[in-house]
Amino acid sequence: MPEELTRVVLDESQIPTHWYNLLVDFPEPLPPHLHPGTKEPVGPDDLAPLFPVGLIAQEVSDERFIEIPERVREIYKTWRPSPLVRARNLEKVLGTPARIYYKYEGSSPVGSHKPNTAVAQAYYNHLDGVKKVTTETGAGQWGSSLAMACAMFDMTCEVWQVAASYESKPYRRMMIETYGSTIHSSPSELTESGRQMREQFPGTTGSLGMAVSEAVEAAATDPEARYALGSVLNHVMLHQTVIGEEVLKQLAIFGETQADVVFGCAGGGSNLAGLTFPLLRENLDGNTTSRLVAVEPEACPSLTKGTYEYDHGDVAGLTPLMKMYTLGRDFVPDPIHAGGLRYHAMSPMVSHAVHLGLMEALAIGQDEAFEAGVIFARAEGLIPAPESTHAIAGAVREAKRLAETGEEKSILIGLSGNGVLDLPAYADHLAGQGN
Amino acid sequence: MPEELTRVVLDESQIPTHWYNLLVDFPEPLPPHLHPGTKEPVGPDDLAPLFPVGLIAQEVSDERFIEIPERVREIYKTWRPSPLVRARNLEKVLGTPARIYYKYEGSSPVGSHKPNTAVAQAYYNHLDGVKKVTTETGAGQWGSSLAMACAMFDMTCEVWQVAASYESKPYRRMMIETYGSTIHSSPSELTESGRQMREQFPGTTGSLGMAVSEAVEAAATDPEARYALGSVLNHVMLHQTVIGEEVLKQLAIFGETQADVVFGCAGGGSNLAGLTFPLLRENLDGNTTSRLVAVEPEACPSLTKGTYEYDHGDVAGLTPLMKMYTLGRDFVPDPIHAGGLRYHAMSPMVSHAVHLGLMEALAIGQDEAFEAGVIFARAEGLIPAPESTHAIAGAVREAKRLAETGEEKSILIGLSGNGVLDLPAYADHLAGQGN
Repeated sequence: MPEELTRVVLDESQIPTHWYNLLVDFPEPLPPHLHPGTKEPVGPDDLAPLFPVGLIAQEVSDERFIEIPERVREIYKTWRPSPLVRARNLEKVLGTPARIYYKYEGSSPVGSHKPNTAVAQAYYNHLDGVKKVTTETGAGQWGSSLAMACAMFDMTCEVWQVAASYESKPYRRMMIETYGSTIHSSPSELTESGRQMREQFPGTTGSLGMAVSEAVEAAATDPEARYALGSVLNHVMLHQTVIGEEVLKQLAIFGETQADVVFGCAGGGSNLAGLTFPLLRENLDGNTTSRLVAVEPEACPSLTKGTYEYDHGDVAGLTPLMKMYTLGRDFVPDPIHAGGLRYHAMSPMVSHAVHLGLMEALAIGQDEAFEAGVIFARAEGLIPAPESTHAIAGAVREAKRLAETGEEKSILIGLSGNGVLDLPAYADHLAGQGN
Repeated sequence: MPEELTRVVLDESQIPTHWYNLLVDFPEPLPPHLHPGTKEPVGPDDLAPLFPVGLIAQEVSDERFIEIPERVREIYKTWRPSPLVRARNLEKVLGTPARIYYKYEGSSPVGSHKPNTAVAQAYYNHLDGVKKVTTETGAGQWGSSLAMACAMFDMTCEVWQVAASYESKPYRRMMIETYGSTIHSSPSELTESGRQMREQFPGTTGSLGMAVSEAVEAAATDPEARYALGSVLNHVMLHQTVIGEEVLKQLAIFGETQADVVFGCAGGGSNLAGLTFPLLRENLDGNTTSRLVAVEPEACPSLTKGTYEYDHGDVAGLTPLMKMYTLGRDFVPDPIHAGGLRYHAMSPMVSHAVHLGLMEALAIGQDEAFEAGVIFARAEGLIPAPESTHAIAGAVREAKRLAETGEEKSILIGLSGNGVLDLPAYADHLAGQGN
């Protein structure tokens, strides 16, 4: 009796065998990334000093489905397929006729969706014989995921973490070290750009843009090392599509022909892309009519308030120019708790989908997001990551609307991670309510 | 092809329908709990001020299988069945012919096995119309589990947390408050016993025994409230047997006729009991010959160095006398990181099983445990709770032994929780190694 199901976890044989490449199905082609110097489309040679060949090929692939290497699938199996859960308690609390589902990526070892691409990126670097990967991290979700993946391939990872987070959020740093990788507070004395920034901005607490510059420089100046990015780029979106592919199978087991409305949080865009791109394919193929909603924080509203134009992915302008919704690479968002959503721009692929009207965007304020997170935690037990609470808040709005109209629609939430290491943010929220 | 499986997660329809009650199958009956005053066996009336009728009945039940209430199973479904994973990467790292499996309870909302009994206890209190439950907690795993369960039944929980942990480990406290419950540092000014202890031991940082006294007093003096305990008692062991019941089904899917050697960590005993009691039933029924090993810390070796005698469950001597392996109720273990294993005694049922020779016991030091934890984290991705690293260390010893003898045995590890909120303990361990 499908209507009595609460949680569907697929058999491991049903882990997707292929990633889905939306690039092929866009009604209009994605504008190419441009070389920061020549302003010409970047080619494989431009990217070779930074990325392994496997990932460079995926960045511009014209294959619709790309096979997931056996070794990557083997590692996925230690936590995938991830569960799709019917939020029955939440439905009751909200008094809604809607059927609410959440796809939970927080049961990965580090507690979020990030390992889906970290494992793939470590694998392709490993194939090229790379022994060291550099990256930046803000709050630390991405850095810890890459450190985990590197440990599995007998590689190490060198992480530059924004100084403010390095000091105030030591748990992710300890996680990275437990996996055997190294981590530095950024800006550091270890790179030319780090030293420059320390001189230029004495006492700075760092920024993601500065950390990118350090990690890129470290990889570019070390022939043994490569650089890795946890979001924004096409190949990262690609790797995350295992989320949505699983959802399609799981919804069918629940007896749903589609998710009528889908809410995913969007910072760089990878969680949202992973969840929605396979569903968007079904829309484009005429099989479904799912509304796909990117939820971003009001404090960093690239999709709802930004402009769609070529911009750099980092503050210093070292990365290629990418066509995307951006608030300007100098934009510094308020220090909200959802650190994973504090990015000045949005993945080119997600931006393109919104620009073409294939996807909607919605901005939600921090208070409303945490309020939804607390309702969710008390109803379902899971404490969502601050990023994910934005998707939940979108779903709560819709569920309440449906309670008024009486429509029995299905709502899907992308629960990108758990908030166990973000509990101080919840404490702040609860204290603020008491005022 | 069963030999290629990595992770088996049962369909939710295969969540056990019944808890297994080992009391019925002990070759010799379990010595009864005794009233602390009369030294006569305690009866239901003695326990009624503290526990709901459903749990009192389970404490001395003579039913072999006790049906899990539908509402409890519904909530279990939000995270159960939990995965059984073949630790293929760990096997490679250890170079062992052994097949190593781990049953992972860390994917519950709070990250450990504790919610298995917290949800059941909240349910039976809810049935009796109870609106408030009191309890003590050390590091906070149990307190946060009960707070989560209470939120789901529209109840609240009042938690007394050992002062040292309350100050030094704020995350669990924040978790409890996020679930809408209240938490106090113990000893507090809120109870008679708390005030006495503050007077008697000025500046004390508290102890679990003191916190028990406060929580028991608060329940005993409030007709609206009941008390809940997260381990030790028979009904708690009972609720945890969902772990082992699932394991039996999962091992069969892997093509294993039995787990040859099983390692579980043991503090109060509930995780170990939950994992092993159903396997012990199969041993007693002559179906299997699994070696069942309780792993305890060298710093708190109740099973390996304690005596088997009647003792109180708390320092103040307010609880019934229970026949168990004990280091004496005044025993204060070193402040090791595995807070969940710092209990002066051992569950009467686990003690009885060890006393009858149905189970073995092994003590492992903290360094060896963390070393195994780091090996596991780097191989499998998951960072185990410090408690669980003891079980892993036992398994690593056995796997290395089998590497020498060449025996292809199967090893099962009870991975009772993840160590995400225990990362400072890993940091201490890694720093210590650097010395």
